[in-house]
Amino acid sequence: MEANVVVEGGSSNSWLALVDSIVKIRSKVAEFPGKMKKVAEDDPRRIVHSFKVGLAITLVSLFYYFDHLYVGFGSSAMWAVLTVIVVIEFSVGATLGKGLNRGLATFLAGTLGFGAHHLANLPGRELQPILLGIFVFILAATVSFIRFFPRMKVRYDYGLLIFMLTFCLISVSGYRDEEVLEMAHKRVSTILIGGFTAIFVCIFICPVWAGEDLHNLAANNLEKLASFLEGFGDEYFRKSSEPESNKASLQAYKSILNSKQSEESLVNFARWEPPHGPFRFRHPWKQYLKIGSLTRQCAYRIEALNGCLNSDVQASPETCRNFREAFIKASSETGKAVKGLASAMRTMTLPTGDCPQTAKSKNAADNLKSLLRTGLCEGIDIVEILEVATVASLLLDILACTEKISESIHELASLAHFKRLEPDEKDGNPDLDKQKQVWQSSNSIASNHHHHIITIE
Amino acid sequence: MEANVVVEGGSSNSWLALVDSIVKIRSKVAEFPGKMKKVAEDDPRRIVHSFKVGLAITLVSLFYYFDHLYVGFGSSAMWAVLTVIVVIEFSVGATLGKGLNRGLATFLAGTLGFGAHHLANLPGRELQPILLGIFVFILAATVSFIRFFPRMKVRYDYGLLIFMLTFCLISVSGYRDEEVLEMAHKRVSTILIGGFTAIFVCIFICPVWAGEDLHNLAANNLEKLASFLEGFGDEYFRKSSEPESNKASLQAYKSILNSKQSEESLVNFARWEPPHGPFRFRHPWKQYLKIGSLTRQCAYRIEALNGCLNSDVQASPETCRNFREAFIKASSETGKAVKGLASAMRTMTLPTGDCPQTAKSKNAADNLKSLLRTGLCEGIDIVEILEVATVASLLLDILACTEKISESIHELASLAHFKRLEPDEKDGNPDLDKQKQVWQSSNSIASNHHHHIITIE
Repeated sequence: MEANVVVEGGSSNSWLALVDSIVKIRSKVAEFPGKMKKVAEDDPRRIVHSFKVGLAITLVSLFYYFDHLYVGFGSSAMWAVLTVIVVIEFSVGATLGKGLNRGLATFLAGTLGFGAHHLANLPGRELQPILLGIFVFILAATVSFIRFFPRMKVRYDYGLLIFMLTFCLISVSGYRDEEVLEMAHKRVSTILIGGFTAIFVCIFICPVWAGEDLHNLAANNLEKLASFLEGFGDEYFRKSSEPESNKASLQAYKSILNSKQSEESLVNFARWEPPHGPFRFRHPWKQYLKIGSLTRQCAYRIEALNGCLNSDVQASPETCRNFREAFIKASSETGKAVKGLASAMRTMTLPTGDCPQTAKSKNAADNLKSLLRTGLCEGIDIVEILEVATVASLLLDILACTEKISESIHELASLAHFKRLEPDEKDGNPDLDKQKQVWQSSNSIASNHHHHIITIE
Repeated sequence: MEANVVVEGGSSNSWLALVDSIVKIRSKVAEFPGKMKKVAEDDPRRIVHSFKVGLAITLVSLFYYFDHLYVGFGSSAMWAVLTVIVVIEFSVGATLGKGLNRGLATFLAGTLGFGAHHLANLPGRELQPILLGIFVFILAATVSFIRFFPRMKVRYDYGLLIFMLTFCLISVSGYRDEEVLEMAHKRVSTILIGGFTAIFVCIFICPVWAGEDLHNLAANNLEKLASFLEGFGDEYFRKSSEPESNKASLQAYKSILNSKQSEESLVNFARWEPPHGPFRFRHPWKQYLKIGSLTRQCAYRIEALNGCLNSDVQASPETCRNFREAFIKASSETGKAVKGLASAMRTMTLPTGDCPQTAKSKNAADNLKSLLRTGLCEGIDIVEILEVATVASLLLDILACTEKISESIHELASLAHFKRLEPDEKDGNPDLDKQKQVWQSSNSIASNHHHHIITIE
């Protein structure tokens, strides 16, 4: 069809451009359902969240509607709608953080704004606008500057914004003192109504806990490391004639490289959350940052190791059997040990004492190290040695990294009071299996712990 | 003093805790001026920004104040204050993006909301709240879902929020049709007033261009890579008896590892900005993402290389002079080549043909490669070879990486029409030096290009 158009309107470029853009738009519209499906499949909780937002806004909109008909808060009622829309977020932590920030900031700024308004009234009508202007300028400049403080930015950015907003609206409103009090009272009440609606819907209908997401993210990232390590040895020594193995699972670690930002925001949200599921009051969320940073350290080295996979000089497996076996063993044993750590994270249960996997992985690493020290095997070409040595010493570096990860997880375990298991209990422990199931259905966790939330609210 | 308290009130723990927390608060307050100074020193434009925000808010607050006294927009005038506070951001691009999002979304949602309001009025008074509830629910749920689309989230998240907000406020307002029109008209006008105030102050008083920041970030990151490469060779072969050299400049590359997020948001802001300084209309901002990603690739490998610096087995410099010289040369020549790239980025001038630095770095790399292939020098201990080989092959991997970076910068140069210089012009070129100076004072760049902005507005 496009070819047809070219023949007919070949002379006019603008026609062609038009047709071209129509075709583009059509293809974009055609892609839309597919994209929608992908967004929904990536995380089905997104659909639930959309319905929750719709519900919360409808509830509070109807309140606004009826308030207008039967006169109560007047135009202030719209603050309820505004608050719900602005406050409701995907996770409970984010919603609570925004709601608390907004509520507290409105209250503080309302008080301060009322004071400023009263003060500016004292010297008389002429000076009032000048004084108000000065107050607003000083406050706005100071608060804007404070927003640059890294710590403030992370936790109270939204509160500072609302503080500035409310102060200006109230102090400059130009009403008499009594009217300002009335207005402040209405604003605070409607914001409370909106805030509670948002928080209520967010917590009581299929809640999404940032803390749980953070915990799962940490465990998932460890699993990605593990699956790389398990698969790497075989992939590296694969003959080019053999079919490519599970390359996709080898590349999964790439998402860890840029996980810092999302980890930090999840930690920040999680700190606003009340106890839920296995996470008690004062759960050591900050420890997750440490684990995450070590995991990334490890992923950077894996990225370098992965570069060797595509290198042109690869070791020929025939000449160096000893080394190959030691290498594959070290890599896969460490993979297993990391997988064990990941599952310990996920179930929040740690075997007492050293786990056998860690010991095996250490043995394999020592074996590889001593092979390297003694100069691999004899009669092997020096070029090959060099190539192989690089890979091996990167691998040993990664193994050292996983040991640090293991330490930080043990720290987390003692801080967060993970369950302790006798080593022999671990295999086929019915309690553990049960807990795994509980873990995988987030709804049940959340619904078990609603009473905690209510006490905090 | 603390010891004194312990003696006096030793028996009561609560007293101690109180004193402890007072001491803590006092030390925090004492730290405050130092922190403030640091925040300001990190980027002095932050102080200017704070004053700009103060100014914009004061201007629009006084408008609100006088409007209330002489009656114009009525309570709608507060939307002007609200808009300024919410829209004004650090960089021009962010402010423009938010302003345009807010303006457009308000207009669209106002129209749609009016339509919904009118439609819901048709069947009669009883059905109206039900119909409105359904409309609001459908719209809120759909928009919330669309906000999860990655592309939408990046560019239009704020617009979608405001769209939802305005639609709900207008459609549910419960007024008669004429009143709704009046209200919508007032809201749009006051939002325009607020938006223009914010954009005006942001652009015309010491503007901060996201595009410029992005460009400088890319050049700075390259320089950090370069200074690592220049220093690494010497540091690696440093005898432990020698004093530590510039370790700080060696570690500067670490900030690159997590630069993805800030790069992406700068690109997003820059795309909203009108032409300014050397950046023309349709400047290829997306190419910076490519350069950034390659720079990070390189930084990951440098992170692995940096791990070798702290390794326990280091090559003894005496045994392997050939290798040491080749290694130091390859590392430092590549560092120089990358520095050349960084300065080409910064001045937006590229020498025609291959630059001599690149050729030198390639030579040095080839030399190192051939040394590795022939098995270094003879008579050297195998353990040492292995250690050294790892470092060398990582370095060669990094060199390959820098070539890719160089390619992507040449791509940028042709897309963005960098100036071309004959190789011999480059040294001591007065034009170039002049442009460097212009580059370093951002104010002059910006003030040269205000006419561009006005045409776009």
